[in-house]
Amino acid sequence: MSCLTHLECPKCGKTYDVDKPQTVCACGAPLLARYDLAAVGRKFKRDDLKGRVASLWRYRELLPVNEDRNVISLGEGMTPMLASSKLGQAVGLPKLYIKDEGLNPTGSFKARGAAVGVSKARELGIRTVAMPTAGNAGGAWAAYAAKAGLGMYVVMPIDAPDLPKKECVASGAVTYLVKGLISDAGKIVGQAAKAQGWFDASTLKEPYRIEGKKTMGLEIAEQFDWELPDAILYPTGGGVGIIGIYKALQEMETIGWIKKGQKWPKLISVQAEGCSPIVKAYREGKNVSEFHTGAQTLAAGIRVPKALGDFLVLEAVRETGGTAISVTDEEILKTMRLVAQTEGMLICPEGAAAVAALPHLVKQGLLNAGERVVVLNTGSGLKYPDLIAIDLPVLEKEAQLEVAAAGEKADGAE
Amino acid sequence: MSCLTHLECPKCGKTYDVDKPQTVCACGAPLLARYDLAAVGRKFKRDDLKGRVASLWRYRELLPVNEDRNVISLGEGMTPMLASSKLGQAVGLPKLYIKDEGLNPTGSFKARGAAVGVSKARELGIRTVAMPTAGNAGGAWAAYAAKAGLGMYVVMPIDAPDLPKKECVASGAVTYLVKGLISDAGKIVGQAAKAQGWFDASTLKEPYRIEGKKTMGLEIAEQFDWELPDAILYPTGGGVGIIGIYKALQEMETIGWIKKGQKWPKLISVQAEGCSPIVKAYREGKNVSEFHTGAQTLAAGIRVPKALGDFLVLEAVRETGGTAISVTDEEILKTMRLVAQTEGMLICPEGAAAVAALPHLVKQGLLNAGERVVVLNTGSGLKYPDLIAIDLPVLEKEAQLEVAAAGEKADGAE
Repeated sequence: MSCLTHLECPKCGKTYDVDKPQTVCACGAPLLARYDLAAVGRKFKRDDLKGRVASLWRYRELLPVNEDRNVISLGEGMTPMLASSKLGQAVGLPKLYIKDEGLNPTGSFKARGAAVGVSKARELGIRTVAMPTAGNAGGAWAAYAAKAGLGMYVVMPIDAPDLPKKECVASGAVTYLVKGLISDAGKIVGQAAKAQGWFDASTLKEPYRIEGKKTMGLEIAEQFDWELPDAILYPTGGGVGIIGIYKALQEMETIGWIKKGQKWPKLISVQAEGCSPIVKAYREGKNVSEFHTGAQTLAAGIRVPKALGDFLVLEAVRETGGTAISVTDEEILKTMRLVAQTEGMLICPEGAAAVAALPHLVKQGLLNAGERVVVLNTGSGLKYPDLIAIDLPVLEKEAQLEVAAAGEKADGAE
Repeated sequence: MSCLTHLECPKCGKTYDVDKPQTVCACGAPLLARYDLAAVGRKFKRDDLKGRVASLWRYRELLPVNEDRNVISLGEGMTPMLASSKLGQAVGLPKLYIKDEGLNPTGSFKARGAAVGVSKARELGIRTVAMPTAGNAGGAWAAYAAKAGLGMYVVMPIDAPDLPKKECVASGAVTYLVKGLISDAGKIVGQAAKAQGWFDASTLKEPYRIEGKKTMGLEIAEQFDWELPDAILYPTGGGVGIIGIYKALQEMETIGWIKKGQKWPKLISVQAEGCSPIVKAYREGKNVSEFHTGAQTLAAGIRVPKALGDFLVLEAVRETGGTAISVTDEEILKTMRLVAQTEGMLICPEGAAAVAALPHLVKQGLLNAGERVVVLNTGSGLKYPDLIAIDLPVLEKEAQLEVAAAGEKADGAE
C-alpha cells in the first residue's frame, strides 16, 4: 500500500535505494523519504480517511512500510486536538488549540517515530537496533522493538531521568549507563553497532522516524477539516517534528489534500534560553546553527546543542513566515501549572516551553487574537513527576474540613 | 443530542429526575441512566460513527450530556485495541487482544468516568465537587474539574502514591491527606459536602461516571466490527467498568447495533488474592459480596473490600456465562514484565492481574485457544514507576560495549 519510491538527500540531491537499510547521505546530511505522490493523489482521497483506524497508520500510502505484517503498532497517533480557550484567553489567543501528544504510547510523540522506524527496520530485515538516548526516544524504541521481536541496545547518560531507564529495562532492552553525555553514549553506540552489525538508530541517522513524525502535520490538517490553522508552535530539540510537519504540508499540497495557494501555518520553533542554537541562527540570518556550548535547561527533550537537521528546521521556519523564540526555565515551570489549572492538562516541560512563548509572540505582534494557533504538547507531564512539588495539609482520622479560606480559592471560581 | 430520559434504581425500580443532581436511590443502591432507546435506534445508526470524533463523545446519543457547550473533553476514549499474539501464544490464547486504557488522558480509564461525570455536573449547575480517592480517580476528576472551571476538593489517605497527589495539586484541586483509609477520607468528604453544599462524587454515589465507562463496551463492539469477542477480562475494584460494559451490551442489543441472539462475551472479573470479595461471592453462589477484611494487594486500583455495585458485577458475570478469579501479587509483577517484553506495553498492575488470570482460565477450560479474548488494561504502567526495579551496568566515557553474553539474550531473539 505504500507509495515509497526512494530516499533523497535534501542537501546534495543524491538518491538512495529503499530496499536496504540506509543511514545518512555520503555528504553527511539526513535522508528524506520520497513517494510517488502522483499515484498517492490518484488513489488516496481525503474521504477515504473516514472509517480508517484512529492511528497514524490511517495514512498508510504516505508511510514507508509496504506490508501489513510488518506494521508494529501500539495505537500511536490521532492524538486529540483540544480547544483551549481558557488558557487562550489568558495569553491573548482565544482560538488556541493544544494537540496532546502525551496520549501516545510510552507517553510522548517519540512513539510516532519509533512505530514507523521499527516497522521499516523489521521490513528491511534488521534484527538488532542500537541507540543512544537521554529520555523518551529510548523508551519508545525499546517498546516497539520488543513488540517487533528485534534486539535492542540502549546507552544512556548516567544522569538521565529514571523513568526512561525503567521503560527500557521493562521492555527487555539491553541497557547501559555511561559516565558522560549523550554524545559519549552516541560514540559507544556507533562503535558497537559497526563492530556487531547492529543498526544505529540515532536521531536523523535513521531516515524513517521523520515519516512517523510527519503524521502530526497530516492530522492537524485533517482535524481542522483541511482549513489549516494560522500557526503551529513546536518545541525544538532535534527538530524532527517540525521538519516532518513541513514535509507533510508539501506532500498534502502536491497530492491535492490542501489547495494550492492556501496559506500555510507559520511554523514557530520554540527553545529554552539555556539551549537555543536554532533561535540564534534564525536571528543572525544563518542557514545552519552553531553548537550551543554548556547547554542547560530542565526541558531535557529540547536540550540539543546542535541538531543534524538544523538547516531543515530553519528552512521550514523561514519558508512559512514563522519565527524562532526562546523562553526561560522559570517560565516553563510557571506555564506547566497554568495549563494544568486552566485546561486540566499535565503537559511536559517542552510543551510548556511552547505555550510560554505565546504571550511573547502576541506582544511582538507575531501572533494576533484572531488567529487559530496550535501548540504541540510533545509528551505527558506524568513522565516528569519531579517537576511537581507537593506539601499537603494532613488531617486526623475524625477531622472535619476547615474550608473558609480554601473555599474562596477553589469554589467554582474561573 | 442526548436521548437521556431518567435515572432508575436497578434494585427497587424507583425512578429519578435527570434535571437535577442525584446521588443514590433511597434504598441505597446506585442509580443507572436510562435513555429513549427506541429513539436512539431510529436516529443513530452504526454507520453514522464513521467520521465522528475519535473519542467517547462519538456516542453522544447514548451519553447523558445534552448541550455541546457542557462537554468537557481531554480526548478520552477510542483507545487502541491491540492484537497481542506473541503474549497470546505464551498463554495459550493466540487470538488475544489488549485494549489499552493507559492512553486515556491522566493515564487511566478513570478519565472516561470523569469526563462524563464532570460534564454532566456542569450541565446540572453543580459548582463544586468533592471526592475521596486513593489514586487515579482523583487525578482524573481534578483534571476535568479544572477544565470545567468547577471547584474541586480531594481527600486522600496519607499513604496513597505520590503521583495522583501531584496530579490533584497540579490541577488546582484543594487536596488534603488523612491519617487513615479511603473510608476515613470518604467520611470527611461526606460531612464536608453536606455542610458546604458540594456535590459528593464518590464512586457510584455519582450516577453518570458509569456512562463514561460503558463506552468501553461500545468501542469493543465497534472495534471488532460488531462481531463481539468471546470474552472480556476486567480487573475489578469498584466494578463500574464491568457494570458499564454489561449495560452497553444491553443497550446495543436494544437499539439493534448487535443482533438479537448473538452470543455476548463472557464477562470475567479478575481480582487480587489479597482482596477478592467478588470472587468469594461468585464461588459461594451469592448475589452480594461481604466486606474483605484486611484487604491487601499492590494493585491499589482493585483494593476495594466491598463495592456498592457488587450485585451488578455478579449479575453481569453470571448472565454472560463469565466467571470471577483471583491472582497473586507475585503473578501480577511477573506478568507486567512479560507483557512489556512480548508486546512492548508497560501496563498497570491491575491490567497485569487480568492478563495473569489467562493461563489459569485456559487450564480450567474456561477459555480455549480458538476464542477471541479481550483484556482491559485499565491504566498506564508509567504511573507505577516503583514497580520497576533497575540495576544497570555503568560504562566509562571511552568504553566499548562487551556484548557476547548480552548479545545472546537480546540479539533478535523472539
